[in-house]
Amino acid sequence: MLTTEQILDAAEDVLRRFGPRKTTVVDVARALGVSHGTVYRHFDTKAALHEAITTRWFERVTSPLATIAQKPSSPSERLREWFETLMAIKQHKADDDPELFASYLLLAKNTSQKIVLAHVEIMIQQVEQILSDGCADGSFEIDNCPATARSLFFATFRFHHPLHANEWGDAHLKEDFDHLFTLLERAIQKGIAYPAD
Amino acid sequence: MLTTEQILDAAEDVLRRFGPRKTTVVDVARALGVSHGTVYRHFDTKAALHEAITTRWFERVTSPLATIAQKPSSPSERLREWFETLMAIKQHKADDDPELFASYLLLAKNTSQKIVLAHVEIMIQQVEQILSDGCADGSFEIDNCPATARSLFFATFRFHHPLHANEWGDAHLKEDFDHLFTLLERAIQKGIAYPAD
Repeated sequence: MLTTEQILDAAEDVLRRFGPRKTTVVDVARALGVSHGTVYRHFDTKAALHEAITTRWFERVTSPLATIAQKPSSPSERLREWFETLMAIKQHKADDDPELFASYLLLAKNTSQKIVLAHVEIMIQQVEQILSDGCADGSFEIDNCPATARSLFFATFRFHHPLHANEWGDAHLKEDFDHLFTLLERAIQKGIAYPAD
Repeated sequence: MLTTEQILDAAEDVLRRFGPRKTTVVDVARALGVSHGTVYRHFDTKAALHEAITTRWFERVTSPLATIAQKPSSPSERLREWFETLMAIKQHKADDDPELFASYLLLAKNTSQKIVLAHVEIMIQQVEQILSDGCADGSFEIDNCPATARSLFFATFRFHHPLHANEWGDAHLKEDFDHLFTLLERAIQKGIAYPAD
């Protein structure tokens, strides 16, 4: 019996070689040497197949990040590790398998925005979790954790948003990230005395 | 006598209607009803013409921002006004004249990266100027003004970088910017007492 995972593995291979437009149920069945019907039982349209490929790709990003968000380490350590891991995953994928990365970007662009937004929402909630833990243990001082999680996620776009992939080869990238992240840490760390005005 | 400005105005009109690939010296001469030679005296290649169009476009962004960077208002006020104006210029252009905006993006993508980077550098230096003024008058407390200017510029990419233009219709955009900017202000404002560790 063919599993959904096996079909998605084959689909990924077709995607890498031929791009999203040429990744159909029929192409994937051909790559697996099975009848179309066998694949149709799992995915009844090209759109459903593409959605499943995209969802699995997103889960490969969010799953290791979820592990970090729940670690017993200090919230400050966890926050930095979370963002460094997000960058590493994205930059590694872009660097290591550029054809697949380009295909995934095209797929995501044509995927329902609901799925993309839900993916972003999961990541922001993980950041929010770390921020809340930091407020609870006194490391952070934050008025609005959900809004601050969004702000941190947006503020670091240059370093993890696939639209900026062509800047990831910049010699100053790590230095730029470190400086920005330290600045953001200053804004949320406990111990800040506000100016009188 | 045809001025460079008049040629560039005509070129912009050709660009808006036909895109960069179809904006050549010959096309612009035709739009102006003059001989090719007349335009060639100003721009001897399509690349030179495109570079001049891009440079003028960039100057229309940096020139009003330079005025703000040198205003006599307080550095905190100026910093916010500078970023709000940058966003307004970019978002206005994208919204108001989407064909021209799309053409400009294509042009910038194919322009020498040296010109693009110089444009970014000018903007970052304007921010640095405001930050230095704020350190001098005691509003800000910043270790490294050049690095902090870069960080502020990168941190706000979502709100002014043309790659994110398709997010500028988001209903929460202004709210998101305000939250992020307030966070960044906290990180540079004077009066911060660091935690003991």
